[in-house]
Amino acid sequence: MIVVMEPKATQEQIQKMVKILEGKGFKIVLNEGEVMTVIAAIGDRRLVNPESLASYDGVREVKLIQEPFKLASRESCPEDSVVTFPNGVKIGGYERPVMMVGPCSVEQDFDGLMRVALAAKEMGCQFLRGGAFKPRTSPYDFQGLEEKALVYLKEASEKTNMLVVTEVMDTLDLPLILDYADLIQIGARNMQNFKLLKAVGKCNKPVLLKRGPAASIREFLLAAEHIMCNGNQNVILCERGVKGLDSTYSRNVLDIAAIPIVKKYSHLPIIADPSHGCGRRYLIEPMAKAALIAGANGIMMEVHHDPDNASSDGAQSLSIEQFKDVQRRLNKLVGRIDYDNQVEKKKHSIGV
Amino acid sequence: MIVVMEPKATQEQIQKMVKILEGKGFKIVLNEGEVMTVIAAIGDRRLVNPESLASYDGVREVKLIQEPFKLASRESCPEDSVVTFPNGVKIGGYERPVMMVGPCSVEQDFDGLMRVALAAKEMGCQFLRGGAFKPRTSPYDFQGLEEKALVYLKEASEKTNMLVVTEVMDTLDLPLILDYADLIQIGARNMQNFKLLKAVGKCNKPVLLKRGPAASIREFLLAAEHIMCNGNQNVILCERGVKGLDSTYSRNVLDIAAIPIVKKYSHLPIIADPSHGCGRRYLIEPMAKAALIAGANGIMMEVHHDPDNASSDGAQSLSIEQFKDVQRRLNKLVGRIDYDNQVEKKKHSIGV
Amino acid sequence: MIVVMEPKATQEQIQKMVKILEGKGFKIVLNEGEVMTVIAAIGDRRLVNPESLASYDGVREVKLIQEPFKLASRESCPEDSVVTFPNGVKIGGYERPVMMVGPCSVEQDFDGLMRVALAAKEMGCQFLRGGAFKPRTSPYDFQGLEEKALVYLKEASEKTNMLVVTEVMDTLDLPLILDYADLIQIGARNMQNFKLLKAVGKCNKPVLLKRGPAASIREFLLAAEHIMCNGNQNVILCERGVKGLDSTYSRNVLDIAAIPIVKKYSHLPIIADPSHGCGRRYLIEPMAKAALIAGANGIMMEVHHDPDNASSDGAQSLSIEQFKDVQRRLNKLVGRIDYDNQVEKKKHSIGV
Amino acid sequence: MIVVMEPKATQEQIQKMVKILEGKGFKIVLNEGEVMTVIAAIGDRRLVNPESLASYDGVREVKLIQEPFKLASRESCPEDSVVTFPNGVKIGGYERPVMMVGPCSVEQDFDGLMRVALAAKEMGCQFLRGGAFKPRTSPYDFQGLEEKALVYLKEASEKTNMLVVTEVMDTLDLPLILDYADLIQIGARNMQNFKLLKAVGKCNKPVLLKRGPAASIREFLLAAEHIMCNGNQNVILCERGVKGLDSTYSRNVLDIAAIPIVKKYSHLPIIADPSHGCGRRYLIEPMAKAALIAGANGIMMEVHHDPDNASSDGAQSLSIEQFKDVQRRLNKLVGRIDYDNQVEKKKHSIGV
Repeated sequence: MIVVMEPKATQEQIQKMVKILEGKGFKIVLNEGEVMTVIAAIGDRRLVNPESLASYDGVREVKLIQEPFKLASRESCPEDSVVTFPNGVKIGGYERPVMMVGPCSVEQDFDGLMRVALAAKEMGCQFLRGGAFKPRTSPYDFQGLEEKALVYLKEASEKTNMLVVTEVMDTLDLPLILDYADLIQIGARNMQNFKLLKAVGKCNKPVLLKRGPAASIREFLLAAEHIMCNGNQNVILCERGVKGLDSTYSRNVLDIAAIPIVKKYSHLPIIADPSHGCGRRYLIEPMAKAALIAGANGIMMEVHHDPDNASSDGAQSLSIEQFKDVQRRLNKLVGRIDYDNQVEKKKHSIGV
Repeated sequence: MIVVMEPKATQEQIQKMVKILEGKGFKIVLNEGEVMTVIAAIGDRRLVNPESLASYDGVREVKLIQEPFKLASRESCPEDSVVTFPNGVKIGGYERPVMMVGPCSVEQDFDGLMRVALAAKEMGCQFLRGGAFKPRTSPYDFQGLEEKALVYLKEASEKTNMLVVTEVMDTLDLPLILDYADLIQIGARNMQNFKLLKAVGKCNKPVLLKRGPAASIREFLLAAEHIMCNGNQNVILCERGVKGLDSTYSRNVLDIAAIPIVKKYSHLPIIADPSHGCGRRYLIEPMAKAALIAGANGIMMEVHHDPDNASSDGAQSLSIEQFKDVQRRLNKLVGRIDYDNQVEKKKHSIGV
Repeated sequence: MIVVMEPKATQEQIQKMVKILEGKGFKIVLNEGEVMTVIAAIGDRRLVNPESLASYDGVREVKLIQEPFKLASRESCPEDSVVTFPNGVKIGGYERPVMMVGPCSVEQDFDGLMRVALAAKEMGCQFLRGGAFKPRTSPYDFQGLEEKALVYLKEASEKTNMLVVTEVMDTLDLPLILDYADLIQIGARNMQNFKLLKAVGKCNKPVLLKRGPAASIREFLLAAEHIMCNGNQNVILCERGVKGLDSTYSRNVLDIAAIPIVKKYSHLPIIADPSHGCGRRYLIEPMAKAALIAGANGIMMEVHHDPDNASSDGAQSLSIEQFKDVQRRLNKLVGRIDYDNQVEKKKHSIGV
Repeated sequence: MIVVMEPKATQEQIQKMVKILEGKGFKIVLNEGEVMTVIAAIGDRRLVNPESLASYDGVREVKLIQEPFKLASRESCPEDSVVTFPNGVKIGGYERPVMMVGPCSVEQDFDGLMRVALAAKEMGCQFLRGGAFKPRTSPYDFQGLEEKALVYLKEASEKTNMLVVTEVMDTLDLPLILDYADLIQIGARNMQNFKLLKAVGKCNKPVLLKRGPAASIREFLLAAEHIMCNGNQNVILCERGVKGLDSTYSRNVLDIAAIPIVKKYSHLPIIADPSHGCGRRYLIEPMAKAALIAGANGIMMEVHHDPDNASSDGAQSLSIEQFKDVQRRLNKLVGRIDYDNQVEKKKHSIGV
């Protein structure tokens, strides 16, 4: 940690800060410049609250050197971590990127869901997605079928041998979700619902953590840390767009660079959701490709058997027909990426 | 609602959309321009999902005319609503702006809290604030004393005859919070935790709803609507800063204009929190004044008996000494505003 | 255009607005709803100033239907426009994506520039980039070699048979730049320097227009319109990142979705600049790939013979060695994209 | 400056960085932590380019300690600077806040302008504002009357003994503007038009520098530095709103906190422009008051003799009637602030 003192800080104020830091176990190096004094404190930054230090008289700024996340950091695990599901599907590292598809919300029409599931299976997708509990900006919009939706999802996934991913919105619903889901999703609006992060951190099922609509990369990785430090290491991140300066042509800005950035600073897998990231159907294919080629470990996208009558997010869902078309091209790209990954993996394993 | 069709939309696509809208009970006016056709649909927009309409072939854009919030809207209640507490304190309308002060987190040192409460009482403040359950970006930071904090808050407020405002982070904790709090706070990060909004909507205690760090005014008022449509009309809004382009000199951008904007579009009271809004001690006073003169119905600010050793947010807390100094000047301003408000009220009541 | 009246607007206010619009040649359709009246005005929106209409008493909001840009719009030119250079290089449409590489600033060391140019030529790049006049946030940073840099660029490009792209910062410098450049760049900070846009609009050389750091897509296309309506139709757009909520890990957010969005609403070519977009060397390759696969017509990136001692933007420049490595992989991707484009083109020309 | 090395940086890489910094005249203090090494470099940071340092192998991050602006910094001038005009009007420090009013654009109707000028004079305003050259997002909007507007402004200001403030958009127009203006405005979109900053830096008339729509405080002060380091110390800053996440209810977010922040880090005067900051007439009064009470040295606002027919920005202009009403209340507030300032000044001068 670096504590920058004000140009006018007194010798007394400087010494007080040095004592406080030494008292917390930090090793101190004092740099007295012509204009201002800078205190470098070497040690475990988690022992102090930098904001609290910043409030002392004579302190201008406190700058962190080490990242505040630990379990999620690349340093703690130099190899990419890989999440493995009971049926053998793997996400992360050199594994082939996965596909998670399905409707935004699960609806009354089970046959419609089944048609989506069969198409997804046919195209080689591994996960069936669908909302049972829906966070909606307006209270007058459809809120989800709740348990009925979970039953539907389970049935459709069993018939097609796929895995279920669905969102949990509240700690109270968690036990129910755990009965049905293979991968528990934390939605973007709940990325900093810390009670919920703690609760899924104590589960033994993998968690899909979506980035908040205005979360920095650091806040995103710290949210993962909340889950991991409660015991659950099987966290998969999901970039789904951040709020931008312009929402006329795109719902959010899908931050493709977040993928290689997360891979540099963390060992966790990361996927992308171009449906929510852009909110426009015609943007799904180019943005899915962009995410994959930038290193995403998978793609989540919305597919509906009848998007015109979807009870939520129709504008960003593909029809089954459109999905097959898009997926055919994505599979071609995934195949190439997988080939390159295997070459890389071989090089890596023989220590090149 | 306005449905704008693509320049290339076919007559068939246009007629399909007209039928759908008529089927939902809308009265239709068709405007066939040279370049494109525009369908105006008059009716209750809550009967349809605009995103779903936008997904039909041939549709370029769906534009809302009426605000999607109803109970929170100014139209539903032309007079300002006023929230009244059991001890007679009122917030909103022409009432004198209130002050909510106290530490960010309630800590082990009860005497420290008591000293803050006594100073707050002495300066005429009405609410004692303090966190019992603390949402923290990092899992390694202090998470709050939980029930013990609530007991302390209750005791300090009873001794000083103040009201308690504290945050609820999870539906599970709500019954406990209800035993101790007079005003239940929903934190910024939980502004779209819809399960929690629904839960406090079913309570009969007033709710203080903080604006999310990247929430638009519309999302903010829709979050209030989630509470109100569950039965609880006693909602007080709180502007506490939104994420900006620059966090070097200020934690957030306190959006002062949100105060007069909310007052135009809604009847709900709104207060401001300059401590969280700016995150710097020296900005609290000018920003509290700016909020008050722009029409805020109250100010929430952090005061700690020993900010240098606060377990959270020390850099944005005032010491007791500083608080008294600042509050003296704020009281002078509040007095003037109150005088002007009473003049306005009199004019209003005699119909000028 | 849609004029939404206030719920309380009087019949008189409504009629006044109708008359004004009719006076401007609009055809009016009046939709009188239960809550509010909506006026649809069909005609050329460029005849009125919507902000001015919005200021009339009784008006709540004015919503535009047609895009305010015309020459840049897809409607005005359904086929992609292609910019052709004297040596036969083409940018846009189904043409093979181009590469523009070179140092951020041209420096004293001509041999260094020559080495970059030779490497670029060897790897098949078409444009040599380099700053002669440098916009710098701080006045104490290197401001460019001015004419000397232009002489160097010209010489290096002639020896390698490449085209020169360089930035003009001021109308006064334009005649000089025109003597040396094949493609005139308008920098991001000058995207709304309308005098400069007008000046390059009167030139007969192609213009590379960079998106402003906080410009919406609409503002971006309107800036292009400023150039085009002065006579110069050879505009190439460049996405180079917009300001985001988090600048810790990335200088800007490279908005990859802007590429397919621009292609939908405009016929102009668009390239991407991952060096400025991200500001980190390790992000250049994945982001260049993402831009290309999302449809970019070219990539601009910074290459320096000695990045450690570059006088500007070293952190986001590739060394010659790194560049060759990256370019080899980009060429492979460009080859595949070109192949797919030719297939598409053939389908398109036979009307499939 | 602090150079943070990567955890895996080699001893060689560390020593190389130390040598480079010593070569530039920095005094080095090396802090070798358990995880990573941190190099503190004490000296004049303007001798090196931190981005260039960041590009060396083994370097994780370079953090600046000292602000990169010097002439604009509070350290360089502990007392507030005051800009004095030939007629004795002063801006800054303890001086009474000034008012700059007038139409967005000067139009054909000279009598209209004269009526605004007379009302402004009557209400005690010091500056007449009006655009002669107008930067417009769309090329189809009114671009200004150019020299004719300057003649009108001059005449109206001479008849009312007011000062003229108007915008210069291009270095070519500067000589003309200098003939007519008392205060030269640099518009928000030109805040980083460095050639223009340099040109006004070489003039001997005061400059009003508006904050760019997405500029950080640091970029804002560095833009002022561009002017000052060319010789012109008479710079007045103007906060006019930054782009926010929500433009439905407000054109921009007027960043009131920028006022006390600038006053802490710089000695330059700062005013606010609530017309552009909010873009809605009803927000002008509360936001002007908020800016004044937060410490603004003046207010700029748009007044038009016939806002309904203004050729630009009608929606954010006050009519003459409305202006007088608003100004009466602002004058009352300005009077109180002036009184408080004089008390402060007296305390300050006798060294309390």
